Amino acid sequence: MEALEGGADYLADERKKTQFDVDAMKIFWAGGRHEFQIADRMARLVASDPEFKKDHRAMLGRKELFKNTLRKTAHAWKRINELRLTEEEASLLRFFVDEPAFTDLHWGMFIPAIKGQGTEEQQKKWLPMAYRMQIIGCYAQTELGHGSNVQGLETTATFDPETDEFIINSPTLTSCKWWPGGLGKVSTHAVVYARLITDGEEHGVHGFIVQLRSLDDHLPLPGITVGDIGMKFGNGAYNSMDNGVLRFDHVRIPRDQMLMRVLQVTREGKVVQSNIPRQLIYGTMVYVRQVIVYDASRALSRAVCIATRYSAVRRQFGSQNGRETQVIDYKTQQSRLFPLLASAYAFRIVANWLTWLYKDVTERLQAKDFSTLPEAHACTAGLKSLTTSVTADGIEECRKLCGGHGYLCSSGLPELFAVYVPACTYEGDNIVLLLQVARFLMKTVAELGSGKQLAGTIAYMGRAEHLMQSCCSVQKAEDWSNPDVIVEAFEARSLRMSVTCAKSLSQFSNPEEGFQELQADLAGAALAHCQLIVVSKFLEKMQEDIPGEGVKQQLQALCGIYALSVLKKHLGDFLSTGCISPTQASLANDLLRSLFSQVRPNAIALVDAFNYTDHFLASALGRYDGNVYPKLYEEAWKDPLNESVVPDGYHEYIRPMLKQQLRSSRL
Amino acid sequence: MEALEGGADYLADERKKTQFDVDAMKIFWAGGRHEFQIADRMARLVASDPEFKKDHRAMLGRKELFKNTLRKTAHAWKRINELRLTEEEASLLRFFVDEPAFTDLHWGMFIPAIKGQGTEEQQKKWLPMAYRMQIIGCYAQTELGHGSNVQGLETTATFDPETDEFIINSPTLTSCKWWPGGLGKVSTHAVVYARLITDGEEHGVHGFIVQLRSLDDHLPLPGITVGDIGMKFGNGAYNSMDNGVLRFDHVRIPRDQMLMRVLQVTREGKVVQSNIPRQLIYGTMVYVRQVIVYDASRALSRAVCIATRYSAVRRQFGSQNGRETQVIDYKTQQSRLFPLLASAYAFRIVANWLTWLYKDVTERLQAKDFSTLPEAHACTAGLKSLTTSVTADGIEECRKLCGGHGYLCSSGLPELFAVYVPACTYEGDNIVLLLQVARFLMKTVAELGSGKQLAGTIAYMGRAEHLMQSCCSVQKAEDWSNPDVIVEAFEARSLRMSVTCAKSLSQFSNPEEGFQELQADLAGAALAHCQLIVVSKFLEKMQEDIPGEGVKQQLQALCGIYALSVLKKHLGDFLSTGCISPTQASLANDLLRSLFSQVRPNAIALVDAFNYTDHFLASALGRYDGNVYPKLYEEAWKDPLNESVVPDGYHEYIRPMLKQQLRSSRL
Ligand SMILES: Cc1cc2nc3c(=O)[nH]c(=O)nc-3n(C[C@H](O)[C@H](O)[C@H](O)COP(=O)(O)OP(=O)(O)OC[C@H]3O[C@@H](n4cnc5c(N)ncnc54)[C@H](O)[C@@H]3O)c2cc1C
Ligand SMILES: Cc1cc2nc3c(=O)[nH]c(=O)nc-3n(C[C@H](O)[C@H](O)[C@H](O)COP(=O)(O)OP(=O)(O)OC[C@H]3O[C@@H](n4cnc5c(N)ncnc54)[C@H](O)[C@@H]3O)c2cc1C
Repeated sequence: MEALEGGADYLADERKKTQFDVDAMKIFWAGGRHEFQIADRMARLVASDPEFKKDHRAMLGRKELFKNTLRKTAHAWKRINELRLTEEEASLLRFFVDEPAFTDLHWGMFIPAIKGQGTEEQQKKWLPMAYRMQIIGCYAQTELGHGSNVQGLETTATFDPETDEFIINSPTLTSCKWWPGGLGKVSTHAVVYARLITDGEEHGVHGFIVQLRSLDDHLPLPGITVGDIGMKFGNGAYNSMDNGVLRFDHVRIPRDQMLMRVLQVTREGKVVQSNIPRQLIYGTMVYVRQVIVYDASRALSRAVCIATRYSAVRRQFGSQNGRETQVIDYKTQQSRLFPLLASAYAFRIVANWLTWLYKDVTERLQAKDFSTLPEAHACTAGLKSLTTSVTADGIEECRKLCGGHGYLCSSGLPELFAVYVPACTYEGDNIVLLLQVARFLMKTVAELGSGKQLAGTIAYMGRAEHLMQSCCSVQKAEDWSNPDVIVEAFEARSLRMSVTCAKSLSQFSNPEEGFQELQADLAGAALAHCQLIVVSKFLEKMQEDIPGEGVKQQLQALCGIYALSVLKKHLGDFLSTGCISPTQASLANDLLRSLFSQVRPNAIALVDAFNYTDHFLASALGRYDGNVYPKLYEEAWKDPLNESVVPDGYHEYIRPMLKQQLRSSRL
Repeated sequence: MEALEGGADYLADERKKTQFDVDAMKIFWAGGRHEFQIADRMARLVASDPEFKKDHRAMLGRKELFKNTLRKTAHAWKRINELRLTEEEASLLRFFVDEPAFTDLHWGMFIPAIKGQGTEEQQKKWLPMAYRMQIIGCYAQTELGHGSNVQGLETTATFDPETDEFIINSPTLTSCKWWPGGLGKVSTHAVVYARLITDGEEHGVHGFIVQLRSLDDHLPLPGITVGDIGMKFGNGAYNSMDNGVLRFDHVRIPRDQMLMRVLQVTREGKVVQSNIPRQLIYGTMVYVRQVIVYDASRALSRAVCIATRYSAVRRQFGSQNGRETQVIDYKTQQSRLFPLLASAYAFRIVANWLTWLYKDVTERLQAKDFSTLPEAHACTAGLKSLTTSVTADGIEECRKLCGGHGYLCSSGLPELFAVYVPACTYEGDNIVLLLQVARFLMKTVAELGSGKQLAGTIAYMGRAEHLMQSCCSVQKAEDWSNPDVIVEAFEARSLRMSVTCAKSLSQFSNPEEGFQELQADLAGAALAHCQLIVVSKFLEKMQEDIPGEGVKQQLQALCGIYALSVLKKHLGDFLSTGCISPTQASLANDLLRSLFSQVRPNAIALVDAFNYTDHFLASALGRYDGNVYPKLYEEAWKDPLNESVVPDGYHEYIRPMLKQQLRSSRL
């Protein structure tokens, strides 16, 4: 690890305490030996390349920052080609470069949209150019006045049969495209979503490939106004991305640039459904959300790694062998930090399971089996919502766990937070997503007893009768380490909350009105369902063989911490539904505390297992060697304000204040 | 309101729905007619002065930003003197200028420290210079390696009887002063906290006035190394403040610059306790924390104002009179937003009560009555912790409530968050403070039955016997609007949690060990106690006459929302202690929903009552007139990236990518 170069390892004592095989855990975390090896190689590649040096992004002005990211992006592309990296490797390399950039949207949204929604012909035409980056594309859906409700978009695509073209237009200010990443300054093309109009008739919202800028001089094409939407949260952070605004004034594109895999417009302007089922599009959604859940585990683990290492270095009060106590030994610190550590592992396990789910869904779709789609859709929507919310809050909690020093950019945490939080909003606002899950749950509950087969993550609802009256059997703290006990408590809680909502809904004569009125409770029931999924998947994984001495024991402890800390946080749910008793709650709390003690000596090794380089962490507090203070001190002096001892502005503003004896003050 | 200049009021329909006298509410919010008038005058003064224009702080580099703040600070000082403002007015003016600056520490910490800890002679010598800003001071306590534990500070102040001086020294890297605001670039003086050593003996940590920079050329004096500690969270935000690092190499100061109100060092180097009681220092703490609670209500109300107005403008899905639904009409939106609106009002009421408490404590201290001090101290520590945590989270929630647009700096919310969050850390880390409250509660519980008189915020513990077995009487939802029912539920919950902790503690042979082990539960009990205080103070206020048609009704609804949403969030506490039943919890939830509906038509007027100018809010989303979209659009184009259509870096980095057909890619 390059961090060790300096010499002493201030965390060596901590590392000596480890009770498990860290290398085996690294492989578990990565998802396999192959995955570990390429991630490790890409991380080192980036960390050792001076072009990718992290260059105090927080201090750069917008233009400098942006240009600098362009430089890194171009260099990354060069290396990807020179080294003939695979898609998997390339994407990891970009990840470790760690700068939001137009390439994220080009590879992550533009290309998948063409793949998912384009005909074979269209794919053949556009994808090779996109793969070679001869064109750069973005994903232009959201408008200034319209986000979550895609059906409300105002941009129009009107077919002109005379010229065989669509006319793309922004009829109002609120219809401007607004937010697409990569749009503002870089993209030459976009997949634009617009209302399809042929022969005066509306046919809903569809995607169109639109060229925005000349490939010769990068100037916007006639009829196109395009720009950046301005600074976003944080210094550095997402400001290396050119989220853009885009206005169309009757821009014409050939008919064959409508993405026609599912719906086609003929030369005559007739709208024809293709024989490809619409549902295919949901496959892409499952994929994108799997990536988001995976990214949640990355971002959360990164914050947890910083806070854990610093908590072992930082000392405050008390006395341990004549020195102050390491703050990681305080139970409040543990009760805030370890559930996040456990969540990072939990989300990683769930993300890996979602990879399987995506594969399963894709295979079924190809076999025209749509039966699991609604469940898979609800499940990924809910998990996106759950994991991104917990991660956003968790990063900020990690920052607070570092006390004052967490507020410095050199801790790495402010930028991590600022760059992460929009994940709660994009790809579906988290509350809107929970409400979608709730609709699915209400439908499922309504059908209980109809004999319909319930599979996947809602299979448990099939045991409604049992779960409505099951009684938690816990009598002593250790009983809570029984997986069956935990799963049943979570299942009962989730089911009972859904059933209560369904009962309340049935009292409304207008069900839609009822749904609106009870939204908050419905969102609560959806969250309970999602938490159950995470707990179940973690426990299921624990049924498998996991190589490496002590690895499984550590994961089991983390699994217990995850489940019991969720239980503690949402205790009201468990008690009010009668799933557990107050005494059982208190026993759960006892076990939780003892799991904290179990994890404590392994905490540093558990974050070492993420295998993050110091380059990637970019944190004075999270250094592998724990040599925190000299680094903080050194970083401070790099601030532009320290270029001169006497600050710019002294003569104009400070000196006169000090010298002039203002007489008239009443103070 | 200057916001109206543009013409149409897009929120006029909302304002028509108002069911109370907004002007009367403005006066209630301000704390009286006089308070309203000066705040209103100062806000307008700042908003109308072009020198105070908000100038896209988010886009400025560190040096520009800092210099710009120096300019505004100097201008503010000029206006304060020209207009002969009172201290109250001056502080409001600075508040509305809305830029963290060295003056905050000069007026808020340096001067109060001299007032609180200096002898009369010292006050006479230093305060007039400070009041005239002939010297500028900061408060230098925290060190690189030492924060919360003040007794662990390493800086030394060694008395040299030969020269009648103290030698101030930083013996290690970790002993560098680190964080003090105003220190880095501006302050000429500091109150420095250091371990007092005379004749080889240690006498604890005390304050010393130390000159840092020459008053002639602003250069650091010999032996002093001083600088800025670098960028902090967010763009703009706290980066206009020069939080600093300071290292002493045997710096000599005259003996009479030790603050000697409580402890004196004689010419011979003897340490003598003065006849002034040490406790006096707690008075200052109560004062500073009252200010922090007040600031919490300001910051939270500001975020809530933005989110509420935007929620009434923003439409998404559904249909209301042929248009999409205003998102403020969604119950999930209400259940996230209205509790924060209620909290803003609650914290304002508590802050006003704390003003009274500070006065009361001060009078008692003067009369040498220290009996209420421990309670006042615990109470303000706890309220500081509670209100700043809720406000920090609340601002971020308001940002999320604005969907994607909340992520833009032009929404005003990112900077508000970034500038606010350190309040959870400075003046006492919020967890450390809760643990102090818990210690006080455990002591109180231990003494129950000893006949000791319990006054103030812990009076309820005197009714322990009753509260340990009281039963909540709620049978229908409206029963929850009875203040007695609410208070008793909160009292019973708080007491029972404390008693449970005390019982668990008693099972440890070493009480300190027990305290460490049970920290997390203890912090929970402390939080419950603090929430009870807020609920009680809100309800007590509702016993008074409050002028203005409908004003009291609105406040009562908000009070109900505050109490019941806390109850909902911490339902596990209430249920596990048996204070209420699941059915009663569900009834509370029903009432909460109906209170949301009651507040809904008044929501805009309730945030108008904060009387914030558009200048102060600095938010495209929070505009008084609701004309959100043109403003967002206009702001976007001001970004430096939009200075050219083709971005800087195109020729070096984008064009080659587009033109060069990289051949070797395996993608
Ligand atoms: C950093 C970033 C990058 C982005 N990148 C892209 C991109 O590349 N391409 C692109 O097209 N878009 C992009 N977006 C836009 C993003 O997809 C939208 O912001 C997102 O879909 C949320 O929509 P909104 O902003 O309209 O929020 P809104 O829907 O307006 O949300 C406002 C509030 O209303 C609530 N609400 C809305 N509907 C309901 C309902 N039915 N019931 C209850 N509550 C409701 C929400 O919960 C929220 O609290 C990006 C956004 C960000 C922040
Ligand atoms: C913006 C800003 C402005 C500031 N301005 C000033 C200033 O003007 N002058 C000045 O002197 N200082 C200033 N400070 C410093 C500030 O007062 C300290 O940061 C604060 O006191 C917290 O201390 P710390 O940073 O050492 O945190 P730490 O105490 O190191 O906290 C780290 C973690 O340890 C935990 N912890 C610590 N002790 C315990 C315990 N006993 N039990 C359980 N958990 C514990 C905390 O909860 C936290 O999670 C400023 C700080 C900031 C961020």
